[in-house]
Amino acid sequence: MHDLSAQIAFILEIDKLKAVYRKTMVKADSNRHENSAEHSWHIAILAQIMAGYAQRKIDILRVTKMLLIHDIVEIDTGDLFAFADEQDHQAQEQKELAAAKRIFGLLPTELALEMGNLWHEFEQAQTADAQFAKGMDRVLPVLQNMSNQGGSWKANKVQQSQVLKRNHYLKDIAPKLWQYVQQEVEIAVEKGWLLDR
Amino acid sequence: MHDLSAQIAFILEIDKLKAVYRKTMVKADSNRHENSAEHSWHIAILAQIMAGYAQRKIDILRVTKMLLIHDIVEIDTGDLFAFADEQDHQAQEQKELAAAKRIFGLLPTELALEMGNLWHEFEQAQTADAQFAKGMDRVLPVLQNMSNQGGSWKANKVQQSQVLKRNHYLKDIAPKLWQYVQQEVEIAVEKGWLLDR
Ligand SMILES: [Ca+2]
Repeated sequence: MHDLSAQIAFILEIDKLKAVYRKTMVKADSNRHENSAEHSWHIAILAQIMAGYAQRKIDILRVTKMLLIHDIVEIDTGDLFAFADEQDHQAQEQKELAAAKRIFGLLPTELALEMGNLWHEFEQAQTADAQFAKGMDRVLPVLQNMSNQGGSWKANKVQQSQVLKRNHYLKDIAPKLWQYVQQEVEIAVEKGWLLDR
Repeated sequence: MHDLSAQIAFILEIDKLKAVYRKTMVKADSNRHENSAEHSWHIAILAQIMAGYAQRKIDILRVTKMLLIHDIVEIDTGDLFAFADEQDHQAQEQKELAAAKRIFGLLPTELALEMGNLWHEFEQAQTADAQFAKGMDRVLPVLQNMSNQGGSWKANKVQQSQVLKRNHYLKDIAPKLWQYVQQEVEIAVEKGWLLDR
């Protein structure tokens, strides 16, 4: 029963991710902010739907697991806006390492290792699986904001160069999606949803 | 580009699942109601963590896909409380079939078939994968309510016999979890979180 208690402790701990809110808004729910749990669900499905655009061979089960757990550390650190300053991103990284240790450490050893390793792999983004997963995390807000009159871009005065820099990542990972993002960013600038800088 | 448009239409459509609220409450977020998107995320992770308790051989990728999409039909139908009347469940089933056709039908043919078939398989619950997935869907609210002073059980005057009947399903699928549920239900009755009927 020891393992089961540890597993349940982890499952109950991650319930808290439903209380971590992001800048992105949920159009269908009166434009309230999106939380990181429902966001993780959304990109896990996105990965199933877009797997065919991956340039390299990916293992969709590993990609999916990474996407499901990639934000869990935010329970301790909160979400950092994708377009925050570089120094904020660096400070966040240290805090996330400690959070991963604490939260995945709730699990029985074998699962703690598996989940912790998947989280590190996602963060380091050196493998095809991690890179595709990260690409999904970057492209979803583009779709959401484009369908929501600019959404969090407009609300936070984001520049087109920031979105292009962040999604340029897709160029080698899923070229067709990168092409799509470029078209959409152009439309967003025309509509005034992104700043023309 | 035709396929990509269809894929994006589906991804944006399912954003609406974040606006479908269930009876279960999120303790960490001031006991607001849980939505079906974040619930789907939570049970997808639960399946990874509890896979070792499956009595039969399961394919965890198929289980995970089923759990990610199993509630999407609620975009059209809304969530029905697990302990609603039998006739409400039957009426819901018909509406869900139409919803599956509409929503998965947004996808390009091959993906529409794959996702539609996974959804049907989950609903019919005849395979080891679907049964384990369904077991996860049933057991998670037990964990949530036990950690939340009875949560939606207490708020809706649920009876212990209802929870036992619903989770008896786990007996052959994951016996260790069924044993755990029985213990917890006993505690819940003692504490007055479930009615002693
Ligand atoms: Ca449901």
